Amino acid sequence: MYKAVIIGSGNVAQHLLKAFQKSDIIDVIQVFARNKGSITHLIDAEKIVSNFDELLEASVYFICVSDHAVVEVSSKIPFSNKLVLHTAGNIAIESLDPKNIRGAFYPVQTFSKSRDLDFSKIPVCIEVELESRYKVLEIIAFSVTPLVYRVTSEQRKAIHIAAVFVNNFVNHLYEIGKEISDNNLFLFQILQPLIQETAAKIITLNPDEAQTGPAKRGDMQTIDSHLDFLTNENHKEIYQLLTQSIINHGKKL
Amino acid sequence: MYKAVIIGSGNVAQHLLKAFQKSDIIDVIQVFARNKGSITHLIDAEKIVSNFDELLEASVYFICVSDHAVVEVSSKIPFSNKLVLHTAGNIAIESLDPKNIRGAFYPVQTFSKSRDLDFSKIPVCIEVELESRYKVLEIIAFSVTPLVYRVTSEQRKAIHIAAVFVNNFVNHLYEIGKEISDNNLFLFQILQPLIQETAAKIITLNPDEAQTGPAKRGDMQTIDSHLDFLTNENHKEIYQLLTQSIINHGKKL
Ligand SMILES: NC(=O)c1ccc[n+]([C@@H]2O[C@H](COP(=O)([O-])OP(=O)(O)OC[C@H]3O[C@@H](n4cnc5c(N)ncnc54)[C@H](OP(=O)(O)O)[C@@H]3O)[C@@H](O)[C@H]2O)c1
Ligand SMILES: NC(=O)c1ccc[n+]([C@@H]2O[C@H](COP(=O)([O-])OP(=O)(O)OC[C@H]3O[C@@H](n4cnc5c(N)ncnc54)[C@H](OP(=O)(O)O)[C@@H]3O)[C@@H](O)[C@H]2O)c1
Repeated sequence: MYKAVIIGSGNVAQHLLKAFQKSDIIDVIQVFARNKGSITHLIDAEKIVSNFDELLEASVYFICVSDHAVVEVSSKIPFSNKLVLHTAGNIAIESLDPKNIRGAFYPVQTFSKSRDLDFSKIPVCIEVELESRYKVLEIIAFSVTPLVYRVTSEQRKAIHIAAVFVNNFVNHLYEIGKEISDNNLFLFQILQPLIQETAAKIITLNPDEAQTGPAKRGDMQTIDSHLDFLTNENHKEIYQLLTQSIINHGKKL
Repeated sequence: MYKAVIIGSGNVAQHLLKAFQKSDIIDVIQVFARNKGSITHLIDAEKIVSNFDELLEASVYFICVSDHAVVEVSSKIPFSNKLVLHTAGNIAIESLDPKNIRGAFYPVQTFSKSRDLDFSKIPVCIEVELESRYKVLEIIAFSVTPLVYRVTSEQRKAIHIAAVFVNNFVNHLYEIGKEISDNNLFLFQILQPLIQETAAKIITLNPDEAQTGPAKRGDMQTIDSHLDFLTNENHKEIYQLLTQSIINHGKKL
């Protein structure tokens, strides 16, 4: 088994710890947490440290801290020549401290503490600076999920950007749906089956085949009547830009 | 049982026909289809007509044709004082021919022939011009789904607009995710679990609680690096507008 240390005790750290606890490839010997109490429900208190000097020697270190702290934390690991992986979509592995073998282990999912996730259904994008360490990294990744993808830094960044579109921006459209429901006194709940079916469709149809609606049909009468109805300037602007984008996209198909 | 006629043989007509075939309140005695072959797999050929003169007398007529044809079709029904319902989100019931009792039966879902749906999970928004007919309309709706909502025309329009945001626009963001994956040679599939989880989260969290990402965190470094990376001007513009909208929305919370 490979000895591993997880640095951080937030969303990703907790989900990763739980996944490794089920693997027989990785033994998490320690977790670094600024606030020990944040992770005592998942691992013995004596395995939690909050001082970098107390870090044990291990084969691999997972840096699962807020993006802005990743680089700084990488320089605080008191060992060299170890595999050090961060879990961010948008941080170059070259920005980690070069005393260790730098890599990325980016799970393409949205984690929150309140939701349980099956890690074996989560794609993980991996990258490492030294070819000779790739195999080990791959073995580690496969121990928690069959969905392992080797990517370049450019691709990881592109995946992160695409994730912003299909996750953060999509959720913002849900927020707008909620605002429209609040303003017009109907239950947001009415939109739920539609939201779920819109996502479910994409499992079997590609998004171009699934596209419907007034913009796709070029139904200017409906579009104009919707724009007339919308009083919130921000909603109007988003409606216009996305409608135009759907119309232009249709022309390219 | 109430005798019903369905006019149209497209997505909504077919799903509605299948739902009514399971109800013991509605007996679909006839379907009007310009192209009879389009619906012979669901109902006996002798019950399909393609001439309005052949329409039988019934208690209720469902106009499930393309939006632009709804008004014209309503005037071709050779009866009066019947309940005539259209299924559109964005058509005023007053625009139907006034010789009949006009109403709406708007299912808030995205239908395609290739996907089976359980009608009992679909919300239906109903509206009728004559109060005395409301009860019948409600009974009819409850015969296919428990999710029956009485709405005003204004509300129905608002729901339709919200549906454009959470369905058509969301699907367009999936299309953009697909474009980014094609351009950067990674599999769109990598985004699937994230897409499904983003929708699933909304069942238990409200969209404000579920919002995450660089815009929500005000992480300008990541936002700038994403904008630098994007070369497609349209993607850039959508990225900027939605990011700004998330930032402004956060300030209101
Ligand atoms: N959440 C997701 O959906 C997701 C998905 C894919 C990748 N990621 C990536 O995973 C990483 C962690 O994200 P997360 O969502 O787990 O974050 P999070 O829930 O906000 O947790 C951040 C963790 O970092 C710790 N931390 C922050 N600054 C630190 C510092 N200067 N020194 C030591 N520890 C520090 C925090 O400690 P305190 O609790 O003491 O503040 C906390 O344990 C990030 O690189 C992120 O981009 C996240
Ligand atoms: N699809 C959805 O997701 C959805 C959801 C909620 C509400 N709606 C509403 O439901 C209604 C029907 O939509 P749909 O998606 O079922 O449309 P669809 O699949 O495109 O089918 C349209 C039907 O209307 C018929 N039609 C068109 N013009 C006609 C005319 N002049 N005379 C007679 N029949 C005509 C078509 O006949 P041909 O096959 O011969 O062209 C076809 O049977 C619309 O009002 C729509 O707004 C749709």
